[in-house]
Amino acid sequence: PDTLTIGTRRFQSRLLVGTGKYADLDQADAAITASGAEIVTLAIRRTPALTDPEAAKKRNLLDILPADKYTLLPNTAGCYSAKDAVRTCRMARELLDGHNLVKLEVLGDEKTLYPDMAETLIAAKQLVDDGFEVMVYTSDDPIAARRLEDMGCVAIMPLAGPIGSGLGIQNRYNVIEIVENANVPVLVDAGVGTASDASIAMEMGCDGVLMNTAIAQAQKPILMAQAMRHAVIAGRQAFLAGRMPRRRYASASSPMTGLPF
Amino acid sequence: PDTLTIGTRRFQSRLLVGTGKYADLDQADAAITASGAEIVTLAIRRTPALTDPEAAKKRNLLDILPADKYTLLPNTAGCYSAKDAVRTCRMARELLDGHNLVKLEVLGDEKTLYPDMAETLIAAKQLVDDGFEVMVYTSDDPIAARRLEDMGCVAIMPLAGPIGSGLGIQNRYNVIEIVENANVPVLVDAGVGTASDASIAMEMGCDGVLMNTAIAQAQKPILMAQAMRHAVIAGRQAFLAGRMPRRRYASASSPMTGLPF
Amino acid sequence: PDTLTIGTRRFQSRLLVGTGKYADLDQADAAITASGAEIVTLAIRRTPALTDPEAAKKRNLLDILPADKYTLLPNTAGCYSAKDAVRTCRMARELLDGHNLVKLEVLGDEKTLYPDMAETLIAAKQLVDDGFEVMVYTSDDPIAARRLEDMGCVAIMPLAGPIGSGLGIQNRYNVIEIVENANVPVLVDAGVGTASDASIAMEMGCDGVLMNTAIAQAQKPILMAQAMRHAVIAGRQAFLAGRMPRRRYASASSPMTGLPF
Amino acid sequence: PDTLTIGTRRFQSRLLVGTGKYADLDQADAAITASGAEIVTLAIRRTPALTDPEAAKKRNLLDILPADKYTLLPNTAGCYSAKDAVRTCRMARELLDGHNLVKLEVLGDEKTLYPDMAETLIAAKQLVDDGFEVMVYTSDDPIAARRLEDMGCVAIMPLAGPIGSGLGIQNRYNVIEIVENANVPVLVDAGVGTASDASIAMEMGCDGVLMNTAIAQAQKPILMAQAMRHAVIAGRQAFLAGRMPRRRYASASSPMTGLPF
Repeated sequence: PDTLTIGTRRFQSRLLVGTGKYADLDQADAAITASGAEIVTLAIRRTPALTDPEAAKKRNLLDILPADKYTLLPNTAGCYSAKDAVRTCRMARELLDGHNLVKLEVLGDEKTLYPDMAETLIAAKQLVDDGFEVMVYTSDDPIAARRLEDMGCVAIMPLAGPIGSGLGIQNRYNVIEIVENANVPVLVDAGVGTASDASIAMEMGCDGVLMNTAIAQAQKPILMAQAMRHAVIAGRQAFLAGRMPRRRYASASSPMTGLPF
Repeated sequence: PDTLTIGTRRFQSRLLVGTGKYADLDQADAAITASGAEIVTLAIRRTPALTDPEAAKKRNLLDILPADKYTLLPNTAGCYSAKDAVRTCRMARELLDGHNLVKLEVLGDEKTLYPDMAETLIAAKQLVDDGFEVMVYTSDDPIAARRLEDMGCVAIMPLAGPIGSGLGIQNRYNVIEIVENANVPVLVDAGVGTASDASIAMEMGCDGVLMNTAIAQAQKPILMAQAMRHAVIAGRQAFLAGRMPRRRYASASSPMTGLPF
Repeated sequence: PDTLTIGTRRFQSRLLVGTGKYADLDQADAAITASGAEIVTLAIRRTPALTDPEAAKKRNLLDILPADKYTLLPNTAGCYSAKDAVRTCRMARELLDGHNLVKLEVLGDEKTLYPDMAETLIAAKQLVDDGFEVMVYTSDDPIAARRLEDMGCVAIMPLAGPIGSGLGIQNRYNVIEIVENANVPVLVDAGVGTASDASIAMEMGCDGVLMNTAIAQAQKPILMAQAMRHAVIAGRQAFLAGRMPRRRYASASSPMTGLPF
Repeated sequence: PDTLTIGTRRFQSRLLVGTGKYADLDQADAAITASGAEIVTLAIRRTPALTDPEAAKKRNLLDILPADKYTLLPNTAGCYSAKDAVRTCRMARELLDGHNLVKLEVLGDEKTLYPDMAETLIAAKQLVDDGFEVMVYTSDDPIAARRLEDMGCVAIMPLAGPIGSGLGIQNRYNVIEIVENANVPVLVDAGVGTASDASIAMEMGCDGVLMNTAIAQAQKPILMAQAMRHAVIAGRQAFLAGRMPRRRYASASSPMTGLPF
């Protein structure tokens, strides 16, 4: 079977989802379930139930994400320096009884939420050295991606477009360059807006897709979660099936090179 | 449930497939089955079993398309004039015991297989007047599409790109203009190359997608048929779910207008 | 020298401009002059000075378009039937002392201003038979373009995008198909929004570009007219110079085929 | 007048060109002259006349680039580490009598020629501290661009696409993000393939464009150099003129938001 191996873990689903921006816990629960996701990311700094005993007493995100069903992927959303991000990951490991799989993101500014690659490289090194299995949010820079893999990150997660933008994959050449060179899974993270965006990422050979806003801020999040589930499967199967060549006409020899565009 | 009504018939699947270019009958059978299609189009002029008693004695396309499972959609592939196309449809009706659902295509030349819209309009009128339920292959011209609907065609089938090209949807504004104005189903016909192309068509509000080469000439046709099944469902669900707005950043007010591109 | 021949006339400039939507006559005059255009199109039905003696007494469009400097190209803007368009062209010929060069446009609806190709074909035939030199606004349908050329039209003018949209060339494959097959000039008409749109049209081998809104509704129309003059020259020269091949990397053998997109 | 100020120097032309890949010196001379460029970049490591007295005796690149006509822009092509790049810049300064304007590029690998941003940041810091005016080749990462500006680089030069690819601008959102945030000139460097690519860069508000292969490897380099001269002017003027808004139709209120694509 076609499974996804990240670090020491193995998964059937190639769709990873976030937990933010839902109307309420029930909607989040229904959408996450409908997505078929096995890995669910949550922002340590925005999950009061992790750190606040009072919050933990009320029904909260952790209640809809039982450990026997989901692999939690704590992330460092809201961190703008390597130091903050590393500290947040260590806190997550404490709070989650030694859970060492994390998604590292070190952001460059509050407006674009674009990664700060210089700080990301520093944080990734420290976390890998500290025994974490690091999935890393990165720009679509192939050289940076290779460096992160060489450091020991277990998954490379280039953005398709800015976080929360829904713009789809902006630079296909960069993403495919990363995919072709990587020996660890490459997952598109951020920028997916609708089903076809997810399919395209998978058709390019990405190993998975992580999304949050595209589902949570669709008009009907649960239906969109189903759509995304199908889209990731469709894209994966299309990649494995090997698409027909593009050509100007049905005739076998119609050239695609030499066009002015 | 979300069903597709074409003329007097109703369907669950929104993926329509062709029968050409497969390695053999078994592959065609397996791929068509995997696609989940309920409507299968076949070229009258390229189906010897319809017209030649000797050919009909051997195992042939009709054997893998039992009438209780599939709705046959005879098409006029290979016709370059209204006269030829009309004659071919009448022949199909004779051969198929009064079956009156047809897909009209009148081609402009052998190289591009682009429709000849002047001849298509003539043929469509004659066929509708003659009692056929006409699904019509058309350019993506919104004015022609409206005229075909006004004549009484039961489905409008604009090309995404040239037949057999796999180029995907070339002119999204035209297709969406057709979709917004139509009161009969609009199905993208021709040009789909991979799963995401089908999803995109459905996300734009098309009612269905017809394809042949994208499945039959994938490296693994049966797996690609599965991919397409998921892709059409994904695109339909995404359309119904209502995608998030596109924006430059996650911040709610990031403008998408006024950009130089 | 690289000249443009349309029917019996020869031109140095490949940029054709319209006269509508300017703030006033002086702005129109300055912008048209800055564009370097030799052919200027004006809507018969919207040029009162042509038909109303009172209007002709005041300073008007014809005053800024002296016959020794410009070739007038009367157009049938506002006509929605072949009959109207033919009548309008005949009126123009009367009013302009036998001037037989016209731009035919028969529109399909007021919202999209998309051409009605069925009516366009009828009108083109009648006008050619009646001795006009017909430049014809058409959809980007390669089959219709060929038919219009076969009828005797002296220039084929496919839309890049809807009139007044500024969306640029929507379907490059169609435009290049028209260019490759034509033996008369092909000029992109409608849809150009900024300088690069005009360059792209010329790089594809188009013989010229006609525009109005992109200049008249720029924030600074006169400067945009200069931009367009350079853009058309740039695109023409780039076409004649023969662009470098596209490739993934500088290395000579980097393949562009086989990519999933 | 609309001039370009880089560091302590001022220029009329916004087109910068390279010197590589020409058939011979005469062709290089003619093309560079035709381009109207005032800044010409040359690779220190590939200019034997700079370092080898024997090579300097023969007619060479420096002979066609007189100091009264051109500003030389020595670059570090071929450097794969900060150390190499810094050493190369210092050597250039020695050889060119204290000339302190350099273009820094530190490459990540020989295949993609993509910048190694980690090394680029190190080298940029050292060079600025050492008194150089540093124009820096960078990925299109807005966060890295800001850091380079904060360090004191005098121009930010994001790639449009891979060096020598001719693919045009791959990620318009990133380039425009850089342009909007920068207080020093932003010049697109690498990836331009034809005239419209250069226009597009300028229309987005870039302050200039640097190219080499697009001219040198056109079929007619001198004509392409002229095309590029016009294209950069066209794009600049279009930017300053303020393009019309994009809209679905001519009607003022046609919405561009809410579309599924």
